[in-house]
Amino acid sequence: MEISVPYNAVLDRIDYTSFDGELGIRSITGVASLEEAKTGDATFVASANFADELEKSAASLVILEEGLELQPKNGQLFLRVKSPAIEFAKLCELVAEQMWMRPPPGISPLADVSPAAKIDPSVTIEAFVSIAEGVEIGPDCVIGKGSVIAADCKLGEGCVLRSRVTLERDTVLGKRVRIHSGAVLGADGFGYEFEKGRHRKVPQVSCVIVGDDVEIGANATIDRGRLSPTRIGEGTKIDNLVQVAHNCVIGKHCILCALVGLAGSTTLEDYVVFAGYAASAGHLTIGAGAQLAGECVAYSDLEGGKKYGGSPAMPLMAYQRIRILTRRLPDLFKRVTQLESQLLKD
Amino acid sequence: MEISVPYNAVLDRIDYTSFDGELGIRSITGVASLEEAKTGDATFVASANFADELEKSAASLVILEEGLELQPKNGQLFLRVKSPAIEFAKLCELVAEQMWMRPPPGISPLADVSPAAKIDPSVTIEAFVSIAEGVEIGPDCVIGKGSVIAADCKLGEGCVLRSRVTLERDTVLGKRVRIHSGAVLGADGFGYEFEKGRHRKVPQVSCVIVGDDVEIGANATIDRGRLSPTRIGEGTKIDNLVQVAHNCVIGKHCILCALVGLAGSTTLEDYVVFAGYAASAGHLTIGAGAQLAGECVAYSDLEGGKKYGGSPAMPLMAYQRIRILTRRLPDLFKRVTQLESQLLKD
Amino acid sequence: MEISVPYNAVLDRIDYTSFDGELGIRSITGVASLEEAKTGDATFVASANFADELEKSAASLVILEEGLELQPKNGQLFLRVKSPAIEFAKLCELVAEQMWMRPPPGISPLADVSPAAKIDPSVTIEAFVSIAEGVEIGPDCVIGKGSVIAADCKLGEGCVLRSRVTLERDTVLGKRVRIHSGAVLGADGFGYEFEKGRHRKVPQVSCVIVGDDVEIGANATIDRGRLSPTRIGEGTKIDNLVQVAHNCVIGKHCILCALVGLAGSTTLEDYVVFAGYAASAGHLTIGAGAQLAGECVAYSDLEGGKKYGGSPAMPLMAYQRIRILTRRLPDLFKRVTQLESQLLKD
Repeated sequence: MEISVPYNAVLDRIDYTSFDGELGIRSITGVASLEEAKTGDATFVASANFADELEKSAASLVILEEGLELQPKNGQLFLRVKSPAIEFAKLCELVAEQMWMRPPPGISPLADVSPAAKIDPSVTIEAFVSIAEGVEIGPDCVIGKGSVIAADCKLGEGCVLRSRVTLERDTVLGKRVRIHSGAVLGADGFGYEFEKGRHRKVPQVSCVIVGDDVEIGANATIDRGRLSPTRIGEGTKIDNLVQVAHNCVIGKHCILCALVGLAGSTTLEDYVVFAGYAASAGHLTIGAGAQLAGECVAYSDLEGGKKYGGSPAMPLMAYQRIRILTRRLPDLFKRVTQLESQLLKD
Repeated sequence: MEISVPYNAVLDRIDYTSFDGELGIRSITGVASLEEAKTGDATFVASANFADELEKSAASLVILEEGLELQPKNGQLFLRVKSPAIEFAKLCELVAEQMWMRPPPGISPLADVSPAAKIDPSVTIEAFVSIAEGVEIGPDCVIGKGSVIAADCKLGEGCVLRSRVTLERDTVLGKRVRIHSGAVLGADGFGYEFEKGRHRKVPQVSCVIVGDDVEIGANATIDRGRLSPTRIGEGTKIDNLVQVAHNCVIGKHCILCALVGLAGSTTLEDYVVFAGYAASAGHLTIGAGAQLAGECVAYSDLEGGKKYGGSPAMPLMAYQRIRILTRRLPDLFKRVTQLESQLLKD
Repeated sequence: MEISVPYNAVLDRIDYTSFDGELGIRSITGVASLEEAKTGDATFVASANFADELEKSAASLVILEEGLELQPKNGQLFLRVKSPAIEFAKLCELVAEQMWMRPPPGISPLADVSPAAKIDPSVTIEAFVSIAEGVEIGPDCVIGKGSVIAADCKLGEGCVLRSRVTLERDTVLGKRVRIHSGAVLGADGFGYEFEKGRHRKVPQVSCVIVGDDVEIGANATIDRGRLSPTRIGEGTKIDNLVQVAHNCVIGKHCILCALVGLAGSTTLEDYVVFAGYAASAGHLTIGAGAQLAGECVAYSDLEGGKKYGGSPAMPLMAYQRIRILTRRLPDLFKRVTQLESQLLKD
């Protein structure tokens, strides 16, 4: 599919301070990095360090910081902005809107939709989707191919389920929730009582509740609560292959990178960040704005507003120091041996 | 869907010693934690520490330990039991049975079922399920939406596949196996021979065999064996996003928490527990009842009946001690430096 | 399904030096390990250490190294070869070809295929598959049940998608790419700009490009690039539950074991190996032939041709030494305390 975004659409979307070069009536045909851009592509320059790459680049439209003393080549348009990264992201949104154009509303004849579901007429339901009784889907949602929505789920307006997403029963999504392919919300929490040599299943009878503007990555799993809901707060972003166990309560605007795992009943306050493989044991509270580095594991409550590393989690600076000292252990052992032999000699 | 479990059904299911309060002919309309319970809900009290919360709780039915000297409020029913957690789990089962009521038997007209499959008439097969030739499915199984069962799989009675489960060919499930959405059993083991600069695929021609009462989490992956089957023993419970590689043999009643990974040909004897991210290298034996803490990794055989931590796995107590000492490394370096300068001075 | 591979097919496929025993007109009915083999099965012997097991084995056909001084029993056929493992793998391929026999070409009447897709007549498209406009599928591909191929994807000849694979739009597969169930290629990269207290999505408008002969495991996730493609080089093998983030460029013939995670924009040169849970931070280069042990995490560029362990990654030998010394910390603390008290005494 050919991309073509007219310049005036770009100028409407972007907060630019000034522009240089040729405006014409042209269109962007794509976006690319400075070095990979072809004629017709838009790109951006983050700093004057990239002046040489810019000189060589074939890009037709360049977004750059207002202060940079660079000039457009023949046929090039420069848009000078305060925050190149943010403004370029807006431009990419224009391209993305064309790439993932909202499919027309309607229910595929190949979908299996309960007559007892309430579905806004603006909703798109694609092929091989199953929707059970009691489901309510708000305006402008897109339910992608092969997705499964079990009984009594509620979806706010503008949600997008890519392909093969499962929402188990009673899952609630806010507005504009975006879920990538293969994610599973509302599978049973992992709870058992050990009785007479066997693990007896503890029924998981609560649900998952997701706030507005949450994004959930491919093949991520968010388990339903046992007695109280598992909650994902507004604006939180969850990457691929993340595991959120039953009864977790995740605050607003948190970031959970790929392969993060949260054990049961853990609370993350707002603006918490877990880098890749970071994890938390169960029944803990991670304070607002805490940031866990990659592989950092919380085994006790963590105070908010701080950076942590290591397992068990400790302040990041302390962890980094210990990592360096650990590497110097061979030397330390030698020094101690030397001290011992010296003392002996004495 | 409204939940309504009559009190007499509750009394039939639970082993109670005595009850206090009003029996009437009422029903439970839900279960909840002490603080979240509304009128109509059942809850439980684990210890006298929760007396205050109980006082404030609106719960209609309360399960509590027989010894606790607490009395029901007006309209409340107390069931006194030996093991509140276990008895409350049974009550939750009653609710869960209503929530996930067995769908009526029959094959969805939107399923694709080989005429050469043998399917008990009591089986439920939902929409967009594919079942290949040679498959045998025992009584009372439920094959959830979008699941794929390849050739020659055998399922014992009472198995439940939630949505979008894949069983690759020759997979064998015992009785009452429960598999959550997105799990894949029987994908090829990851085996290659390096030959002339390329990785040549080693065919994986065995299968996966799963015992009775096993539960497997969402998006978990259990690979088929190369020459001999990958085996999951009776009563073992596997959480979300767990990887079990080819030829592993897992014993009975083991617990594998989320994001655990077992490399190829490893044996877990009975009652082994792997906490989150715990892992094992290949071709090892983990003895019966061994418990690996979170992130613990076995790089050699582990004796049964013990707790382990760290990587490589060591006895948990030793590991905890080393973790503490590691944090004191900055101090140790200082002490050694001091000793050195003192000796020099001397 | 009964397996039956005639001996002459075996002799055609395998590079044998000589054979001993009875050739007849028999067939192999399966492959198995030495101890599990039944009459009719083929097996292999890696070294003379297995002479006793061979003596007890019921295997009908045995592949063994040419130098071994072992003799066939009555009714047994021995094939002497240079590399038993490689030749046995070839024999297993014969069995695998029967087990996963190429389904007949054609589009299932239960698939949903855009008339604007170009599909070679030799392609097999199974039930509940969705194929969007602009897709091109080369000869002899098999698109397994429930898979989703979004707009403008291109698949080279001989690709196999097992069940429930998602290729998001613009994904390009080379020839003979094999993708296991539940894998997702081309989901959005995980990129946000933090603006006014919220995470603003950075559109991910590039794609995923996969080279020839790549294999990708069950429930693995390979995200689309932001501005430039995420690339997987020819012959690279990726295990289950691996995460490859946006803009990664993976070279040829690399190996990524289960639960590996690569953060964004990381480059792996050719022949790199990541064992289980090994990982890389973003924007790094891992040199050709570098091998990361299990759990090893690269936080800076790594030179090629070396083995690494630990986090942050260090040369494997150094890491192993440090692991040993770490275990001896309790002793070291004691020794330092002793030195201190001795000095004090002095």
